Amino acid sequence: MRETFDVAVVGASGMIGEAMMSILEEREFPIRSIYPLGSERSAGSTLQFRDQSVKIGLLSEFDFSRVQYGLFSAGASVSEVYARRAVEQGCTVIDNTSRFRYEPEIPLVVPEVNADVLTEKDHLIANPNCSTIQMVVALKPIYDAVGIERINVCTYQSVSGAGRSAVHELANQSAALLNGKPIESEVAPRQIAFNAIPHIDVFQENGYSKEEMKMVWETRKLLRDESIRVNPTTVRIPVFFGHSEAVHIETRNKLTASDARELLQQAKGVTVVDDPQALLYPTAVTEAANRDDVFVGRIREDISHDLGLNLWIVSDNVRKGGALNSIQIAEYLINGTV
Amino acid sequence: MRETFDVAVVGASGMIGEAMMSILEEREFPIRSIYPLGSERSAGSTLQFRDQSVKIGLLSEFDFSRVQYGLFSAGASVSEVYARRAVEQGCTVIDNTSRFRYEPEIPLVVPEVNADVLTEKDHLIANPNCSTIQMVVALKPIYDAVGIERINVCTYQSVSGAGRSAVHELANQSAALLNGKPIESEVAPRQIAFNAIPHIDVFQENGYSKEEMKMVWETRKLLRDESIRVNPTTVRIPVFFGHSEAVHIETRNKLTASDARELLQQAKGVTVVDDPQALLYPTAVTEAANRDDVFVGRIREDISHDLGLNLWIVSDNVRKGGALNSIQIAEYLINGTV
Repeated sequence: MRETFDVAVVGASGMIGEAMMSILEEREFPIRSIYPLGSERSAGSTLQFRDQSVKIGLLSEFDFSRVQYGLFSAGASVSEVYARRAVEQGCTVIDNTSRFRYEPEIPLVVPEVNADVLTEKDHLIANPNCSTIQMVVALKPIYDAVGIERINVCTYQSVSGAGRSAVHELANQSAALLNGKPIESEVAPRQIAFNAIPHIDVFQENGYSKEEMKMVWETRKLLRDESIRVNPTTVRIPVFFGHSEAVHIETRNKLTASDARELLQQAKGVTVVDDPQALLYPTAVTEAANRDDVFVGRIREDISHDLGLNLWIVSDNVRKGGALNSIQIAEYLINGTV
Repeated sequence: MRETFDVAVVGASGMIGEAMMSILEEREFPIRSIYPLGSERSAGSTLQFRDQSVKIGLLSEFDFSRVQYGLFSAGASVSEVYARRAVEQGCTVIDNTSRFRYEPEIPLVVPEVNADVLTEKDHLIANPNCSTIQMVVALKPIYDAVGIERINVCTYQSVSGAGRSAVHELANQSAALLNGKPIESEVAPRQIAFNAIPHIDVFQENGYSKEEMKMVWETRKLLRDESIRVNPTTVRIPVFFGHSEAVHIETRNKLTASDARELLQQAKGVTVVDDPQALLYPTAVTEAANRDDVFVGRIREDISHDLGLNLWIVSDNVRKGGALNSIQIAEYLINGTV
């Protein structure tokens, strides 16, 4: 008989938590008991899991010795308080917040990219930021083949990256503006409907936003190469689900566009949609939303640099960018394969 | 008494043509008679100009010897037929289509950037593409100070760049989707509402779109430097008015972010909005729409390149990107100043 596990989902009423519940079900993750957990605000409400109603428990009262895995996605401040406590109680925590990502001894993992860093001693594992995950999944095969010197990346990020309230805000603002009514911005720092905002997370002293610096720090840690130089501009746009990224890389050795296409076609977790003459390229709505893979198109040699290559990388930020990646980490811990 | 001129506006019922009419009025362009012109579809309908109703005339029957200036914005195929004919009839044509932009003997002009190329012999002058104009206005002072080697640029372009029908399509698709109704895409190549489409104009053999290649060709011609290397990814996003651009440049000599900010603060046609700690940066809706200037923010030194500098450049694509720039060219021809 197949071994089964008890799993806690921390932040179960959030968008990532909800996706975790449904992905655990879809992928037939070997669950014995599931414990959705939340704050006092959400505790007591019920969720569906495998045709059953499950009540959201109170995180602050939960005994993590009851579960083998804890999937955390309730914000860095919640992980700060509860993640290490859960590990001490014998639970392996996969943390989808920024809290532990940059601590040298904590593994930061995208299974297709660096699952091999994981050892049996790891009971606290960090899940990277959504915008980094999809980029690195697509760049890993290229990095392995020819190396990467430098990355210029500009993102086109959906509002779901900022949570459910940001999704509602985009819908509400769009409807109000189409009806000629005034709007308010509470989640986004400006009007997000019919606009583009070059500001995600807080600004750092060097003029980059923290979202931008996450892409710098995490790309290096995931590819285990501190020499890779990354220059991001991250931008929120009025899309509900799915992040798009224009990625201009400079490789160490020459890679043609057609060789890159071939490499990516063979890569796990990647779907190439790339035939501009046939108008084939991925977009957030038409390819990525509700799908697991990272979609890559517009693969072309950079006319401005001998070793340059351009890619357009699109993925569902709630799935591969968060919930799915965390569950894939748990699956790797259980099965030892990606 | 101030000299006055007779002016024809070709494509007067289009979005750029309409903006031309209102900008001519706003700026008190010295007009004696105005002749809005169009195809059989629009001829006969009336427009307001200076509190008067003016009838749109039929382009195919118009005698251009009646005007000194012709502002053309009705598509490359219309300019193909009528622009040289108008010049032969004694009219100076400022053409806001791609028809003549890349002909070596035709000046391509952004007045703040290269008005000095114009001579008295020039009676056919090309207006660049919207996405190039705003970028080059912001880059010119930097180019003059330290030179520019290479430009990585990713655009966030509004649908108004594709004309009035594209604006209606975004509004209709947005409203339909918010009401759970099916949508159709006729102008954009995919659903544009709540999406990002990396496809503007037709794809070239090298994998770049023509919109991208326009930025390459026009930047070099405007800055009169064929050695500048440009690597664009151009993307349509669900914004009505105002193009945004993430521009990552590599200069020939070092320029600090604060020196760049100072240069740009003094530049004609540029407004710097750049204090991230105070959450000041330009966006299409909050700064650019309906304004004349090119707005620049997020100015920062590129952490991935010693001579790198990043900028976020936003402007109203219908005004500075089209109608206003054409009128500024005419003003320069008349006054000899920008």
